[in-house]
Amino acid sequence: MIVNGQPYRTIWLADDGAGVEIIDQTRLPHEFITVRMDTLASACTAISDMLVRGAPLIGATAAFGMALAMAEDNSDAGLSNAYARLYETRPTAVNLRWALDIMKTLLEPLAPDQRRDAAYQRAYQIADDDVEISSSLGEHGSELIRTAWEMKGKPTLEEGGVNVLTHCNAGWLATVDWGTALAPIYKAHNAGIPVHVWVDETRPRNQGASLTAWELSQHGVPNTLIVDNVGGHLMQHGLVDLCITGTDRTAASGDVCNKIGTYLKALAADDNDIPFYVALPGTTIDWTIDDGVRDIPIEQRDAAEVTHIMGKTEDGSLTTVQLSPDGTVAANYAFDVTPARLVTGLITERGVCEASKAGLANLYPEHA
Amino acid sequence: MIVNGQPYRTIWLADDGAGVEIIDQTRLPHEFITVRMDTLASACTAISDMLVRGAPLIGATAAFGMALAMAEDNSDAGLSNAYARLYETRPTAVNLRWALDIMKTLLEPLAPDQRRDAAYQRAYQIADDDVEISSSLGEHGSELIRTAWEMKGKPTLEEGGVNVLTHCNAGWLATVDWGTALAPIYKAHNAGIPVHVWVDETRPRNQGASLTAWELSQHGVPNTLIVDNVGGHLMQHGLVDLCITGTDRTAASGDVCNKIGTYLKALAADDNDIPFYVALPGTTIDWTIDDGVRDIPIEQRDAAEVTHIMGKTEDGSLTTVQLSPDGTVAANYAFDVTPARLVTGLITERGVCEASKAGLANLYPEHA
Repeated sequence: MIVNGQPYRTIWLADDGAGVEIIDQTRLPHEFITVRMDTLASACTAISDMLVRGAPLIGATAAFGMALAMAEDNSDAGLSNAYARLYETRPTAVNLRWALDIMKTLLEPLAPDQRRDAAYQRAYQIADDDVEISSSLGEHGSELIRTAWEMKGKPTLEEGGVNVLTHCNAGWLATVDWGTALAPIYKAHNAGIPVHVWVDETRPRNQGASLTAWELSQHGVPNTLIVDNVGGHLMQHGLVDLCITGTDRTAASGDVCNKIGTYLKALAADDNDIPFYVALPGTTIDWTIDDGVRDIPIEQRDAAEVTHIMGKTEDGSLTTVQLSPDGTVAANYAFDVTPARLVTGLITERGVCEASKAGLANLYPEHA
Repeated sequence: MIVNGQPYRTIWLADDGAGVEIIDQTRLPHEFITVRMDTLASACTAISDMLVRGAPLIGATAAFGMALAMAEDNSDAGLSNAYARLYETRPTAVNLRWALDIMKTLLEPLAPDQRRDAAYQRAYQIADDDVEISSSLGEHGSELIRTAWEMKGKPTLEEGGVNVLTHCNAGWLATVDWGTALAPIYKAHNAGIPVHVWVDETRPRNQGASLTAWELSQHGVPNTLIVDNVGGHLMQHGLVDLCITGTDRTAASGDVCNKIGTYLKALAADDNDIPFYVALPGTTIDWTIDDGVRDIPIEQRDAAEVTHIMGKTEDGSLTTVQLSPDGTVAANYAFDVTPARLVTGLITERGVCEASKAGLANLYPEHA
């Protein structure tokens, strides 16, 4: 998508065809800095220090990390070392494992001197496939936005346009391009539909305020930042036409595990008869889990994410400040699970389906 | 309640019986500073700069402000000037007007040289009455906490105790003592019930993180700070036994207008069969409004409250930092309305009633 007027992906081959470049997302939204990775070590750091985040982008970065590793040491030992070190960077990330397994399966049977080129080619393919998935998902989802807009009588932006609420960042920054929840919005915007986005700031890590607001604004999509408390009020007053969020893990039943607070927005949408859609690539479906609320484990993160926050001071430097009293005890649940009954539909690369076992089985018969 | 081991109210007469002292709440939770007011001007500043906040405390401060004014100028002109200047400090605060009207009605008929003493006495009485109301409300509400605890089999704190979730600050800092939503919690705690509080940080002004967490901890009530997104997840997993919030304005129907985000917590409580109580002094009931969602106007505040936040840096100074990208458009709705159907009961100084016209009419027959 567009940054400073130029098209970008979140990860790309450097002009010399050897290095791999990424955006340092820890500096956003205050600074736009690209970083070049030339070694396995730099790819590991990029993932573990969250310069890249979002399941699809982590997967693509891991794949390119394997390619960089093969350029450094194409032996069997080099291969298993690269797999192990990349896997350790964020062991709970499903896409990380998935991408590493693809690379390992491809590279292991090859002669060492064939591995480097094959790895680059396959990593590039993984990134490209991800763009294709997001783009396709975006096309399907944009039809829902178009329909909502048409049902309102096609108002211009000045007349209210069509209003989508989203939570956290499931934008192109979390994928290689287009995004998941934001892909339908970019597609609708690019097609001339006057879409406006309500952006939940998404405490505690503020990915909405720092990433979603930034990437939408850079691409030219009108958006308004709100605190996480506001969505219900907006829905009560007809200011939201549909909600679209992403999901980190989707149960076979259609329950969705996403950033903490998603469940509260789904409840408000349900209470106000507003469609609540969840966008996901099929790879995030966990076919082994039926009861998401009961069986998806919820990560608890450092309390300091709640008690402290980083921002830009008047002189332009980035500083962390403490928000709560000294000695505050805080709990930091990172995700929650929205039951399928509150989800109007799932937007996938294969189309839109009901959030249910039957709905998913229809789109993914190979898993049913 | 207790601060640094000593009992405090939020407003009190200085030892010399002339000045009036308050806590500078804008410095909390990082600094506990008391401020002495000696003039009408200082009382006006205390209200307009929000050194004091919370409807009951604003009312008491305005009453003392009239007393300070009468010590400076007890003429008729002095009286009407004091009324006008105090009224302008926060013209939408219902309790401000209410307290000023009481003072004016009392003082106008008196001879000027009687006004000073009468004003001090009446202001003190207004503060004392507020303590009585909060205390009484707290006693009624604490029985709900006791019942919830007993129904769980009286677990100790280590065994889980009884868990109350609250939003924003409706604590003693918002009143003269005890608070509204927190009064039942203090009463239960003082009675030996092992109550633990989940404190919503309450974006954007973070009154939960900065005031509720502080006052509960100072008084010794176990509490855990959470971001506003977390409550639904906790309720899904049995970690909340009841919710208690305050309200800024209660419709005659039982709809409650409270800090933005209250509605989302009420939805989650409803979805998980958890009692959701709202605590209020009868004075906050607006008998002229039936449909709160439609008819209670919602204040929109400065977007900078969303895009910027103040905190303590490592060197101990207070600094404001910018959280979102330069040029971010933000909306800042300060309140929302929770429909009566989602409210289990209203906790008042006269007892607990159903959140309905009939329930309120039963407790307040003089208004029915």
